[in-house]
Amino acid sequence: MTSNGEMWPDLTPPARRRLLLAALEAFSEYGYYATTTREIGQRAGMSPAAVYVHYPTKADMLAQICVRGHAEVLAEIERALELPGSPGERVGRFVTAFSSFHARRHTLGRVIQYELRGLENDRFREVADLRRRFEALIVQELRAGVDAGEFTVDDVEATGVAILSLGIDVARWYGAMSDQMSADDVAELHSTLVMRMLGAPA
Amino acid sequence: MTSNGEMWPDLTPPARRRLLLAALEAFSEYGYYATTTREIGQRAGMSPAAVYVHYPTKADMLAQICVRGHAEVLAEIERALELPGSPGERVGRFVTAFSSFHARRHTLGRVIQYELRGLENDRFREVADLRRRFEALIVQELRAGVDAGEFTVDDVEATGVAILSLGIDVARWYGAMSDQMSADDVAELHSTLVMRMLGAPA
Repeated sequence: MTSNGEMWPDLTPPARRRLLLAALEAFSEYGYYATTTREIGQRAGMSPAAVYVHYPTKADMLAQICVRGHAEVLAEIERALELPGSPGERVGRFVTAFSSFHARRHTLGRVIQYELRGLENDRFREVADLRRRFEALIVQELRAGVDAGEFTVDDVEATGVAILSLGIDVARWYGAMSDQMSADDVAELHSTLVMRMLGAPA
Repeated sequence: MTSNGEMWPDLTPPARRRLLLAALEAFSEYGYYATTTREIGQRAGMSPAAVYVHYPTKADMLAQICVRGHAEVLAEIERALELPGSPGERVGRFVTAFSSFHARRHTLGRVIQYELRGLENDRFREVADLRRRFEALIVQELRAGVDAGEFTVDDVEATGVAILSLGIDVARWYGAMSDQMSADDVAELHSTLVMRMLGAPA
């Protein structure tokens, strides 16, 4: 499991990174609207004035967290789909990447999935674009499997939503269960269940 | 679709009911911690002092919403399981009740699934007891299907969690999609997908 403390090593200077990680934890614990810039500063050991040097607003911190988080999910999915494979193999790799992300990064997952309502219009659109890209990828992979005669799926879009639901909801429950199931266990279970959902050959 | 305005007709007097519905909407929009008692009063057209006549604290309002919400889910599931049936029929009815609840009542669903962290210890335990009851019910139905040779399931508990995930996540996405899919559509899709997940005869 990746702890939050190891996240985003590319984010510099260190104070800027420490602040975004503090914002992530506060948003995850109390929600975006209940968190003040002052509180984020305190968690990072910095004054409110020092916060503004790095981030003009609390909304900007949420936007940066959500854009980073969605870009990471998307990058992991794209990596999973890089190599060719049968439709079943490819969807299995998609599900493994997506579900295990929401286990390994459950704190980040909670914020990027449940705190989007706090985003301002422009940044919301930016995040919505990233979401549409991974939504399109699962639908595309499902279609390929149907066209190849490997999957039996009535409603490709709605089935795609259900597959994403399985993964997204991991961010909600995994924190309390991480001692009982590894992220790999979750990913393996979900891949198996999804293969069955699609009527794919075992 | 049941609008929130029609909910909880048993809750009297009307001011008490109006306040709990106002709290539900505010918690759903901004989160529990960001909502003030004053704001809840304003939404219900009442002064803060008038709020305290009906509810001693904001935490008490959250507890009443969560206990009511969980009791309703549980009652719908118990009703769905009242009549006998094959394991496949019974799990299908469970999934229909659970997933359609989170579509029909997505505002309530969001609060009872994502705002539990605001509950005080005693009330959290009360809600956790209700959750354990429906978690136990799905596991029990899955076991019955495995024992009868109708389902092929490796890990009954983890598969139960996945079935609940499908339903719970509906509360997150359904509000934005309710014009494209009825609650019955969601329930039917999920029942079909779950039957396949379990390797049940069609």
